[in-house]
Amino acid sequence: MKKSVLFSDFTIVTSHDDGKATISEHSYCAVHDGKIEYVGSSKEDAVKILTNLCGGSFEEYDGKNRILAPTFANAHAHTPMSIFRNIADDLALQDWLFGQIIPREDRMIAEDFEYGHLLTLAEMIESGTACAANMYDGARITTKASVDAGFRVQQTIMGKKCEDGKWSVDRDDVVDFQAFLKETGSALITPSLLVHSVYLYPGDFYVPLAELAKEFNLPVSVHISETLVENENCLKDYGCTPVEKLDASGLLNEHTVAAHCVHLTAKDRSILANRKVWVAHNPSSNMKLASGFADMPEMQKDGVRLCIGTDGAASNNNQDMFMEMRLASFMAKGTKLDPTVLNASDVFHMATRNGYLACGFEDCGLIEEGMRADLQIIDYDCPQMWPLGNALSALVYSCGPKCVESVMIDGQFVLYRHELTTIDMEKVTYFTRKTMERLK
Amino acid sequence: MKKSVLFSDFTIVTSHDDGKATISEHSYCAVHDGKIEYVGSSKEDAVKILTNLCGGSFEEYDGKNRILAPTFANAHAHTPMSIFRNIADDLALQDWLFGQIIPREDRMIAEDFEYGHLLTLAEMIESGTACAANMYDGARITTKASVDAGFRVQQTIMGKKCEDGKWSVDRDDVVDFQAFLKETGSALITPSLLVHSVYLYPGDFYVPLAELAKEFNLPVSVHISETLVENENCLKDYGCTPVEKLDASGLLNEHTVAAHCVHLTAKDRSILANRKVWVAHNPSSNMKLASGFADMPEMQKDGVRLCIGTDGAASNNNQDMFMEMRLASFMAKGTKLDPTVLNASDVFHMATRNGYLACGFEDCGLIEEGMRADLQIIDYDCPQMWPLGNALSALVYSCGPKCVESVMIDGQFVLYRHELTTIDMEKVTYFTRKTMERLK
Repeated sequence: MKKSVLFSDFTIVTSHDDGKATISEHSYCAVHDGKIEYVGSSKEDAVKILTNLCGGSFEEYDGKNRILAPTFANAHAHTPMSIFRNIADDLALQDWLFGQIIPREDRMIAEDFEYGHLLTLAEMIESGTACAANMYDGARITTKASVDAGFRVQQTIMGKKCEDGKWSVDRDDVVDFQAFLKETGSALITPSLLVHSVYLYPGDFYVPLAELAKEFNLPVSVHISETLVENENCLKDYGCTPVEKLDASGLLNEHTVAAHCVHLTAKDRSILANRKVWVAHNPSSNMKLASGFADMPEMQKDGVRLCIGTDGAASNNNQDMFMEMRLASFMAKGTKLDPTVLNASDVFHMATRNGYLACGFEDCGLIEEGMRADLQIIDYDCPQMWPLGNALSALVYSCGPKCVESVMIDGQFVLYRHELTTIDMEKVTYFTRKTMERLK
Repeated sequence: MKKSVLFSDFTIVTSHDDGKATISEHSYCAVHDGKIEYVGSSKEDAVKILTNLCGGSFEEYDGKNRILAPTFANAHAHTPMSIFRNIADDLALQDWLFGQIIPREDRMIAEDFEYGHLLTLAEMIESGTACAANMYDGARITTKASVDAGFRVQQTIMGKKCEDGKWSVDRDDVVDFQAFLKETGSALITPSLLVHSVYLYPGDFYVPLAELAKEFNLPVSVHISETLVENENCLKDYGCTPVEKLDASGLLNEHTVAAHCVHLTAKDRSILANRKVWVAHNPSSNMKLASGFADMPEMQKDGVRLCIGTDGAASNNNQDMFMEMRLASFMAKGTKLDPTVLNASDVFHMATRNGYLACGFEDCGLIEEGMRADLQIIDYDCPQMWPLGNALSALVYSCGPKCVESVMIDGQFVLYRHELTTIDMEKVTYFTRKTMERLK
């Protein structure tokens, strides 16, 4: 249920479209019908606006020792994969993927998609995330679950099929999914076309996929240059880098979200910048699977648009954007031997505003009047964040899931004072345990 | 107050002295008078032992969806520095240290040490840590606070003074501190001699410090090769590496804890291995301050003894050993491009057993009969850790402060079902806010 709320006397931390974050103490934010109607220092003005809109029947949320911040948008996830959490670690990528993960994926049934997805949404909400790009099969099941949970998702659709080893585009799948989306009546879901990578399909299949995306005005979700092996094979097969191959196929544009991008050439970076592709950085996953260190400071310099993702829970092994934001900054500083690069403001912007834009939500990710009300409340009256110091630094370098008190998505509290309100965790726990036992 | 407790039907995860961790489901652990009296699968045996020891007046703690694990020992911290949390980030090391931190340290008064220290202990306890090496001034104040909080600390003492720019050893300081320690009657504190680094004292002062440590049988706490600049200056001043300089001075032995060790030669690693020095790895701090990546897998191969620390909250910016343990593994995998190095078992051993040994507590850090009862209870019935999968992987790669339900130190619950029992957080919050305002 959408609530009218006056967030009263908070420290408001938000980024802005110039990429710079601001910190405003003793500030007020009025939310009505899912929209931010007022942000500023006057309680009187905020109350007046809310009273006009809803006749005074609003909740006042007290901001003592609290930060109000935009929620995170996780730009690269595989949400149902939480059912594979902590079952296959410290393994080489090939052993992990082909020995452990894919054999289990082959045995998944509908309820595994549904409850794995909901388990991930619960974890995301508890760690301040309100939006995720979900690159996975099972679009209808997980979309319905997302809508019921009140969670924003950019959901991939397959739009292709493989019969007798031959891939072809599946226009019906796209048409059906868009009709299905319309039926839900929800503005929380945006679709995108799953184009897994340069190594999964035959070389002549990328142009038809690009044409399909263009016909239906679909964004494209793709993995690029996650490993050196991918690059080497691409060079062997196509005589160019994965970025070049995808660009030549017409798959790179301002709606494309490219995950990983660990091993890029200067020319690759220039193509990604020119095409305005969103690069979703996955620091934990890239380190854990030993893929390497994506050079975010260099991409930043070259004007590539950057956001952050967690990757799936089978390769991370959690879905905590605080961790990823912090690690994105640390990794950049450590690899560049420069503590000033990818500062708190940079990574906060990547994890909030840019994530939302990458997922196709233009009016989310900032605490500004007119934006949708996707908000998190951080309780900093705890040993981990005290004394607060600089509130932006505190969010990026000290905060974690333990400090997230409430989360609002589109005006609805999905976490209210540490209680999930839209997801029945007992049911999710029950079904995901069953799944785990069956897929052992 | 020490409690007699039967930990009943837990998943027990512990390392052992061979460096390998084990996972035992449906297990029991009996604690009496601060000691682990039974570990095994028989409730009957556990009850019998406890009944003999305390006549049956023990608490039964239910282990449903709970892990029982040894607490962490943080092998490198500067505990009072939580008062400088989030005030100076994204800065070059020199600007940070000389521009922001030292000018504030010069104005610290007794209560800043006391409440800064207690704030850090509270944060450590809430994140499963029961023991810390505290390298900082104010030994008497922080020791008293540690004893009152029931927290284990290896506390540095100065043992030296500087008058008119000339350093001399201060035997009285050592004698006095040891008498003070005896007076407390507590076994929770071990002393060590602070030898800051190769760059803080005159070159001929390291031998007298080694003699002082030897005379009083004091372990030595030292920073080694944190930055390239440190190494370059050492080479210029002494014609050798920091490890070589300290070794030639007689400061490296099996009781020495050497923090950082980011930039080592093969010869340095060999010296550290031969001298059985404890190397305290600080992944977050080394990345954040852009010091670089310590090569833990290479040290491990060479037989160097490894543990993990957080460094101070001014350069991290929290004191969460889950984060450091996870990051230690990730950093090793990422830099070596090998996902099998520094696996979950390795980093768990470093963060638990080895940390305790480094801090001088021989009978802590394992869940085995006869060990002191330093234990943490993890609630894995939460989205972040569900479904559990491999319990060791879950502890290392998924767990965080939010999942820590209770912490016992030496048989006393210092955190009991999410409530701190020995630290008055309202008082600590009040005084640290005052400190922060004064040192602005």
